[in-house]
Amino acid sequence: MLRAVVARDAPGAPIVDLTHEVPAFDVRAGARVLARSVPHLGPGVVLAVVDPGVGSARRAVALEVDPPAGAPSGGRPRFLVGPDNGLLPWAAAALGDIRAVVRLARPPDAATTFDGRDVFAPVAARLWAGAGLGDVGAAVDPGSLVQLADPQIERGPGRLRAEVLGVDRFGNVELAAVPADAVACGLPSPPGGAAGTVGILAVDAGAGTRPVRTVASFSAVGPGEVGLIADSGGHLALVCDRASAATVLGVEPGAVVTLHRGDRP
Amino acid sequence: MLRAVVARDAPGAPIVDLTHEVPAFDVRAGARVLARSVPHLGPGVVLAVVDPGVGSARRAVALEVDPPAGAPSGGRPRFLVGPDNGLLPWAAAALGDIRAVVRLARPPDAATTFDGRDVFAPVAARLWAGAGLGDVGAAVDPGSLVQLADPQIERGPGRLRAEVLGVDRFGNVELAAVPADAVACGLPSPPGGAAGTVGILAVDAGAGTRPVRTVASFSAVGPGEVGLIADSGGHLALVCDRASAATVLGVEPGAVVTLHRGDRP
Amino acid sequence: MLRAVVARDAPGAPIVDLTHEVPAFDVRAGARVLARSVPHLGPGVVLAVVDPGVGSARRAVALEVDPPAGAPSGGRPRFLVGPDNGLLPWAAAALGDIRAVVRLARPPDAATTFDGRDVFAPVAARLWAGAGLGDVGAAVDPGSLVQLADPQIERGPGRLRAEVLGVDRFGNVELAAVPADAVACGLPSPPGGAAGTVGILAVDAGAGTRPVRTVASFSAVGPGEVGLIADSGGHLALVCDRASAATVLGVEPGAVVTLHRGDRP
Repeated sequence: MLRAVVARDAPGAPIVDLTHEVPAFDVRAGARVLARSVPHLGPGVVLAVVDPGVGSARRAVALEVDPPAGAPSGGRPRFLVGPDNGLLPWAAAALGDIRAVVRLARPPDAATTFDGRDVFAPVAARLWAGAGLGDVGAAVDPGSLVQLADPQIERGPGRLRAEVLGVDRFGNVELAAVPADAVACGLPSPPGGAAGTVGILAVDAGAGTRPVRTVASFSAVGPGEVGLIADSGGHLALVCDRASAATVLGVEPGAVVTLHRGDRP
Repeated sequence: MLRAVVARDAPGAPIVDLTHEVPAFDVRAGARVLARSVPHLGPGVVLAVVDPGVGSARRAVALEVDPPAGAPSGGRPRFLVGPDNGLLPWAAAALGDIRAVVRLARPPDAATTFDGRDVFAPVAARLWAGAGLGDVGAAVDPGSLVQLADPQIERGPGRLRAEVLGVDRFGNVELAAVPADAVACGLPSPPGGAAGTVGILAVDAGAGTRPVRTVASFSAVGPGEVGLIADSGGHLALVCDRASAATVLGVEPGAVVTLHRGDRP
Repeated sequence: MLRAVVARDAPGAPIVDLTHEVPAFDVRAGARVLARSVPHLGPGVVLAVVDPGVGSARRAVALEVDPPAGAPSGGRPRFLVGPDNGLLPWAAAALGDIRAVVRLARPPDAATTFDGRDVFAPVAARLWAGAGLGDVGAAVDPGSLVQLADPQIERGPGRLRAEVLGVDRFGNVELAAVPADAVACGLPSPPGGAAGTVGILAVDAGAGTRPVRTVASFSAVGPGEVGLIADSGGHLALVCDRASAATVLGVEPGAVVTLHRGDRP
């Protein structure tokens, strides 16, 4: 439906679906997927809707982002449109600095339950067609944007605790930590680190402690084994080969796992 | 595959997917989703396929719709293409009056099991590229179109029975009734009506009677509570906040629920 | 994400999703769906990713295909891009003869886990924008492409054994055999064959022997009955009317079923 509205209001605008796999109502998962994706996009407008608070007092917003100093301007998305519930700031940070934020007005005939169709998509279409931020809403303080809690990471000697940021449809478990975090804790790290073994304690999820091996690819993980990989978003991820690591480890997004030195080779 | 055929036969035609979430074989659910969507589309051709009777004697048709008197012509879809099994008439009615209907011929090399690819998509592409209805088939009487049974609604004093038209992927339960039906029965009605409580008896589905509160947004529904909302298609809908009302109430499309005055505040 | 990369690297390129319903990691199912689809595509580049070996030593490749002698050139896809794991050759064979194959280089900043984004999509965009095969990689011997095992078919007098190639989302069971195989075995065959009854023994799947009737359409199959149909890819398929034949028969892709003369009318 959003695609149809954009096609109606901005004929000719190329529309690219990033994903429809964000779990229902999971703003945090949506924010993470969005932040991973936007650095690979070309110029344009990012329209994102994970919006359990639709119809409530939560604001509808559009953000304009300045690319980092030295980066070619115009090569990446400049506008983000969506609910002010924490969905957008991580993606904005992945693109540069927030230059300005506006609060979107509600069209008088908007339904109370489908701002994607009635508020966000029409604004995204207008921004794509050349409107500026001031044309679609009234400026608000960027500091007033709702922020999600930072992902949990705790670094210690030989011990790294990290939140599970997401689980993709293959069951790969993306962690909040990056390879440099493992190195900082004195732990082996994929893919450049010395091959070794780390242990993982699935604290919240109750599947106990399992050996984990650092690997450079899914197919380097043996049958029944769990690997630690640097994923395509630059994060550490726990993976299996053609199987779901999330199921094997018994973890879901929001769980916290602990990586520490293991006993087995 | 349909997208690919349209792209092949009408290069440059913008293709917008409305939804792929219609339950398999459920013509009635498809007809309802389509009727909800088409008023928001720009000009063009609507191609719809929910077609359990493919390969049987059911006809393949294309419809041309006249916009309502006074409406700007050209601002909405003018053609609908699909099986003559009841899928299209509700959507046509949402767009205006049916001006003409043609029966589509089968290309000699068409498979018997995939008219979407072999019959409907090529015709949609031709209509988009400028063909008229007479170019793609032979006229038939619009009155001969297969019609679905009207959705069940029964209004009484303090009592409104309504069919469940659909359940979306969030578990929201769309009813055949609109807010004016509730008002006509002397019941509270979202969002303008006096805040109040109505009771719901899940007649067919066996989950018993539950209190329901009229609300203006999902987030106004408390934990474990069920709300009655005016949804984005203008219908009454039973909803939960970040949970499936269909599961809570034990209803599926086709079930009939009864709204009546409840006891609790 | 692949769509976004192509849109970024080849602005204006029309992007058509063929399917996202290939089961995770199932190269064979992906190869079959692709081979069924490509004959219906217009000119362009086919990008296919079912890639459990991403990050391993498996090669990334692009293929150029010559249309069959006498076929109009330019009317079908000419390039295929994807992993060298057997995914592409069946589709290439459905389009014509393989003229050349190149091995794709890995960009230095490519992640090890997402060649779709970092290797395949950028190359597909370049080929669409006019690059030749020599611009995107170094030639390798087409004979060195990884090939999947041929689908199992065994013809005998009054008896046809065939692998289940795939199960679609309706539960239709596509077999490796085509109607001519049934005829060669002296068995009834849809849709042109004499109407009759064949029996099916679900050898690997344990659901026993069931009567099956040759039919021309789904709706010709009675309630609870299983039909044998010629599907839209030209293959024999076991189907039910508005129900899953795969569930009824207890078969999955890779199973082998046996068709033989049945006893019942």
